[in-house]
Amino acid sequence: MGPADTLLLLPDAEAILRAADRIRPYINRTPVLTCSTIDKTYQSQIYFKCENFQKVGAFKARGAMHALLSMAPDRIRKGVATHSSGNHAQALSWAASIVGTDAFIVMPSNSSRIKVDAVKEYGGKITFCEPTLRARETTLDTVLRDTGATEIHPYNDYRIIAGQSTAALELIEEVPDLELVIAPVGGGGLLSGTALAVHYFSSGTSVIAAEPDQANDAFLSYNSRQFHPSVNPETIADGLRTSLGSLTFPIILEHVTSIVTVSEKSIVTAMRYLWERMKILIEPSSAVPFAAIMEGKIDVTSRKTGIIISGGNVDLSDLPWMSHE
Amino acid sequence: MGPADTLLLLPDAEAILRAADRIRPYINRTPVLTCSTIDKTYQSQIYFKCENFQKVGAFKARGAMHALLSMAPDRIRKGVATHSSGNHAQALSWAASIVGTDAFIVMPSNSSRIKVDAVKEYGGKITFCEPTLRARETTLDTVLRDTGATEIHPYNDYRIIAGQSTAALELIEEVPDLELVIAPVGGGGLLSGTALAVHYFSSGTSVIAAEPDQANDAFLSYNSRQFHPSVNPETIADGLRTSLGSLTFPIILEHVTSIVTVSEKSIVTAMRYLWERMKILIEPSSAVPFAAIMEGKIDVTSRKTGIIISGGNVDLSDLPWMSHE
Repeated sequence: MGPADTLLLLPDAEAILRAADRIRPYINRTPVLTCSTIDKTYQSQIYFKCENFQKVGAFKARGAMHALLSMAPDRIRKGVATHSSGNHAQALSWAASIVGTDAFIVMPSNSSRIKVDAVKEYGGKITFCEPTLRARETTLDTVLRDTGATEIHPYNDYRIIAGQSTAALELIEEVPDLELVIAPVGGGGLLSGTALAVHYFSSGTSVIAAEPDQANDAFLSYNSRQFHPSVNPETIADGLRTSLGSLTFPIILEHVTSIVTVSEKSIVTAMRYLWERMKILIEPSSAVPFAAIMEGKIDVTSRKTGIIISGGNVDLSDLPWMSHE
Repeated sequence: MGPADTLLLLPDAEAILRAADRIRPYINRTPVLTCSTIDKTYQSQIYFKCENFQKVGAFKARGAMHALLSMAPDRIRKGVATHSSGNHAQALSWAASIVGTDAFIVMPSNSSRIKVDAVKEYGGKITFCEPTLRARETTLDTVLRDTGATEIHPYNDYRIIAGQSTAALELIEEVPDLELVIAPVGGGGLLSGTALAVHYFSSGTSVIAAEPDQANDAFLSYNSRQFHPSVNPETIADGLRTSLGSLTFPIILEHVTSIVTVSEKSIVTAMRYLWERMKILIEPSSAVPFAAIMEGKIDVTSRKTGIIISGGNVDLSDLPWMSHE
């Protein structure tokens, strides 16, 4: 199969292994950390797959790099594009710079300075637009027309899903016999990739997703088996505000055991607890799975548990416990 | 040799390897992390040995555990004691709880709540005293007399030095051919241990120490070859306020290539930079070596460099860039 073929099909076991091989030279094999105090407190064995130590500080580097490496050379040459103000924008800019092409990033004009700077630093070419979804989409259309670049969606793309699946694949390789893997869910790229990797490579392992109460569209969609969009969610977990996609939702319905939700307060408490106990910087979205454990929504007692820590991009001058205390 | 013998002699290569073997079941083999952005910025290869991920959040766990495991059983039974408000107090409490004995900790009455709680959490038995060195020493004497416990000095003890040396030993094992290893210096336990490990196990490697300008007693002592005490130093790097010891100073004179000093401002800048770039929580003392690189005091260009990150115990509600900005 040529490289472009992985775009069209639901990733199977072979596609996931191929994605891992392809991106391996470029990404970090992130460490899996444990904490004996946490294990004692929760009478469990919890393994944290630390994608906050990934390139660009988030798992998004995996999917973006895999998408680029899956494209035909003549397409790569014209560049890639997306509308995003988050980690996907940084990841795509980084991946494009590695393979030597352009990343055109459409960002809302009210994006934080820190996010704009991060995209610039990785060489992304930014076009600003009004801060509405409609403006983002029409501006991206113009950019695509003007440049001939290929749009890379942040999650609704099998190449991206296969790339994100490699984090769980590494976790499973390193820690066998996990009873449970917990991942946060936003658009579902990480969750569907995680669920596929667990399905193919770890028998007897359940996948549970955790989501903010205030952005519970995946919870509603999953339980009603009908797509619910995410409408103006207000959560500190800024990576989890998006709706599920047409490709991620069916995978989640088929391979995820349950979805639980957590309060904003728990997210901040869990985030600070993991900073203090584990000495790792993680962003609010990454704290959502552990918040579910703290809230008692997921029982990890005596269950060997993996948690995907999704990223560590935070603004250190605006930490949530500063304003919330 | 019986376990108590390692107390009396300058650790040789064999003593260091034995220390590593002895403490291995109890401590974390901490990860060595790198950051491609930092390497690009400084045209170097820098390997961070992350003792912030060590038990109790600092390298001190190594020395404390080794000291306890080196004691004769009848001495261990009566417990250990120290006066400390810092990581050594936590480390000794932790190590004592592991081997099943008491740690008696003398702490000044003005110690921060967070430090008192940490010692309590690890099971240390605290005696408070007036916040003067004299009160600390006389209170410790009373505790020693009343309990029969053995004093474990935070650094001026060959068992402690041998324990601390194992961090550099692991770094050297994992990253061969380092040209340079940089460690912070306070009392010199970590630095002398690092220097010995490098001396015995890594030929052609220089050891450089970094110290705050505002607590430059080791710098003065080293350059004059005469002991200078640390007198009421005011530095944010609270782990580096102590004076060198009679055992650590000669090792440092013999095996350390140079000592450089850095400003308070650089320490805060370096600390924040490493948090942002590497997503690791490190305490101010840990940022001092990198501050020296940022200040141009240590040239790492094209030199394969190791840095010992000493610990990660910080008060998250009082971060230095909050008050300094």
